[in-house]
Amino acid sequence: MDDAGVTLQAEMAAMGRAAREGAAALRLASPEQRTAAIAAMAAAVREEAAAILAANAKDIAAASGLASHMVDRLLLDEGRLEGVAQALETVAAIPDPVGAETERWTRPNGLDIARVRTPIGVIGIIYESRPNVTADAAALCVRAGNAAILRGGSECLATNLAIHAAVAKGLKAAGLPEACVQVVRTSDRAAVGMMLGGLDGAIDLIIPRGGKSLVARVQQEARVAVLGHLEGINHVFLHESADVAKAVAVAVNAKMRRVSVCGAAETLLVDRAAAEALLPPVAKALAVAGCELRGDGAARAIFPMAEATEADWSTEYLAPIMSVAVVDGVDGAAEHIARYGSAHTDAIVAEDAQAAERFAVLVDSAIVLINASTQYADGGEFGFGAEIGIATDRLHARGPVGAEQLTTFKYVVRGTGQTRP
Amino acid sequence: MDDAGVTLQAEMAAMGRAAREGAAALRLASPEQRTAAIAAMAAAVREEAAAILAANAKDIAAASGLASHMVDRLLLDEGRLEGVAQALETVAAIPDPVGAETERWTRPNGLDIARVRTPIGVIGIIYESRPNVTADAAALCVRAGNAAILRGGSECLATNLAIHAAVAKGLKAAGLPEACVQVVRTSDRAAVGMMLGGLDGAIDLIIPRGGKSLVARVQQEARVAVLGHLEGINHVFLHESADVAKAVAVAVNAKMRRVSVCGAAETLLVDRAAAEALLPPVAKALAVAGCELRGDGAARAIFPMAEATEADWSTEYLAPIMSVAVVDGVDGAAEHIARYGSAHTDAIVAEDAQAAERFAVLVDSAIVLINASTQYADGGEFGFGAEIGIATDRLHARGPVGAEQLTTFKYVVRGTGQTRP
Repeated sequence: MDDAGVTLQAEMAAMGRAAREGAAALRLASPEQRTAAIAAMAAAVREEAAAILAANAKDIAAASGLASHMVDRLLLDEGRLEGVAQALETVAAIPDPVGAETERWTRPNGLDIARVRTPIGVIGIIYESRPNVTADAAALCVRAGNAAILRGGSECLATNLAIHAAVAKGLKAAGLPEACVQVVRTSDRAAVGMMLGGLDGAIDLIIPRGGKSLVARVQQEARVAVLGHLEGINHVFLHESADVAKAVAVAVNAKMRRVSVCGAAETLLVDRAAAEALLPPVAKALAVAGCELRGDGAARAIFPMAEATEADWSTEYLAPIMSVAVVDGVDGAAEHIARYGSAHTDAIVAEDAQAAERFAVLVDSAIVLINASTQYADGGEFGFGAEIGIATDRLHARGPVGAEQLTTFKYVVRGTGQTRP
Repeated sequence: MDDAGVTLQAEMAAMGRAAREGAAALRLASPEQRTAAIAAMAAAVREEAAAILAANAKDIAAASGLASHMVDRLLLDEGRLEGVAQALETVAAIPDPVGAETERWTRPNGLDIARVRTPIGVIGIIYESRPNVTADAAALCVRAGNAAILRGGSECLATNLAIHAAVAKGLKAAGLPEACVQVVRTSDRAAVGMMLGGLDGAIDLIIPRGGKSLVARVQQEARVAVLGHLEGINHVFLHESADVAKAVAVAVNAKMRRVSVCGAAETLLVDRAAAEALLPPVAKALAVAGCELRGDGAARAIFPMAEATEADWSTEYLAPIMSVAVVDGVDGAAEHIARYGSAHTDAIVAEDAQAAERFAVLVDSAIVLINASTQYADGGEFGFGAEIGIATDRLHARGPVGAEQLTTFKYVVRGTGQTRP
């Protein structure tokens, strides 16, 4: 390791130690104090708007080499910044999860056992682009009593640092240490590796939010727990009992409302028993909405479209393209989803309740929808107030990750001197 | 890799594929079918008692080089085997967790969101010695709808295979595939590495149960989620408000009831404000019970005992030895526990309820007890029916891991054609 590496390692280790102190302070803070901190962050974002927008202009100027949709994700204006402030206020209004008893029971020997929500500790969040994540992640972590170490995209560093200054101002205003939320101040990618190593045990959990290469690196290198956010290869299955109007509405919305979100549908599955009736109106509506279709042989025999290759079934297009397969009933749909899906979000359109419930049992995704659009895969839509992403791992949290999902729990056992026989 | 390595890898990969099929069958099985399978395992253990005891005798004969307490852990007799059968019946009687709705709410747009328990999938369990784990782990996994791949200690292989034969008989009797529970049939340690690699994505979760070297290997090599079971460096803190009789009873029970379990206390913390009154009766009772004490300067000034070294504070003795430190109140106790403890199980003895509740907030262990022995750290004592161990990681499950803790969840969202604006 060269001198710069040694220096960075020392800096990151210091961040880890500071984060642990921040976490200790947050654990002991009252819910009101955490609320005050998040509300003060919102106020500070408004107060510091000029500085944040100036920093963003610097990032944008440096980003001339990026594709226009990447630049758009990076861009802040007064309207978007007000959105950031309002999102902070939403998180300030979420009930504080820390200390909540989720279960409590008494044993025959009189021991009173309570299961109580507690903060996880220190959470490292590694993300790309969108600068609003800096504010959202900070607020959600503080809401759940966790310290955060944030590492955003290097193309967004000036903006993230400016937003972080507002976050720090909010923490200070509420009497909390600034180390409760820290931002990695370098674009050196070695910092990511150090975070994945856990910073000498300082980091309890890593949440990656980004593309496939980030996810792959995290899976390879992480030495601490990871709350994974995989791609959303999501399906809409039209059962033979589907109402045609609902099928059209749900499929078009699931694919086309916003094509770039992880809740967007990528594959349309059509029940063979009613494909002749269901596919033409749905495919036509998708085409009219500007969606390219790529089908298997059975689909193409019913409606003209391009030919799907094997790779299409496991592709997250994030674009106005949809693959189309004809399958045999609920079981065929579930088999296709198990084989090609990413266990994120899948929907069935069906009037037959029994078929719909079987789909809900067979499909093992974080979110299974019956007669509703996959684009509801969102913490806000679930009523969580905000989210840090959609978890697709099988443990701890699945689906939208809001403040409650950023807690763990402990058992508090109250006795009167019991000893075990 | 040599030929044997290639063969083993192929065998392990085949186990992984079979386990996935077993998991699919268990997911679709009814609760009654899972219950029937576990009850049939109990019956089969009794039917196959002679074969199991003969296999155990073989293991015992080969274990002549082991320490006597290791041989004792390995040993089965008719009484212990009947205990194994009864433990299976206990698990058969636990309510089936799969499919249980833990939350359900309706959104303003009419979407009905349910949070439903589902199996985790395929669980790999790596353990040492005690052959009853083979039966317990099999039953708990099946209860929660999970397939299991079990890898027990090589010194116990013949016994584990004989118990597994009874498990397989039980599965078959209930119409479930034998691949729902598989045992690694070799003592080649390379098999452990392959399990830690996830067997091509077949394993969803690894649960290690064993000593420090196993835990270290798992932390180093695991490429899949791990539910960790660290050592229990547990504390009993005597607050200045402690009732002397309760202090004596809890401390002696916590340390001496069984010194070799992970819930045994290793360190006694005494509040400086009442150390002169509390320490002598408690230390005397411990000494009378056969416990060696190792104290810091303040403790030794009050009661004669050996001198503790820095290493003592972070040692899990699993023996009749207890370290003793004098600390300053609840905050001093919490600091000591944060520094040296393993976040497993810690207890306070106090009549001052406010002090006890502060201890419960400050001490961030999986189990915090007020006026009760640390030896209650046990799934059976919590009312879980059985456990596979005590989790000390911060995510998913903490404390006793029973059937419910071996599930994950998904959201099932029921709509009437909702599309997202």
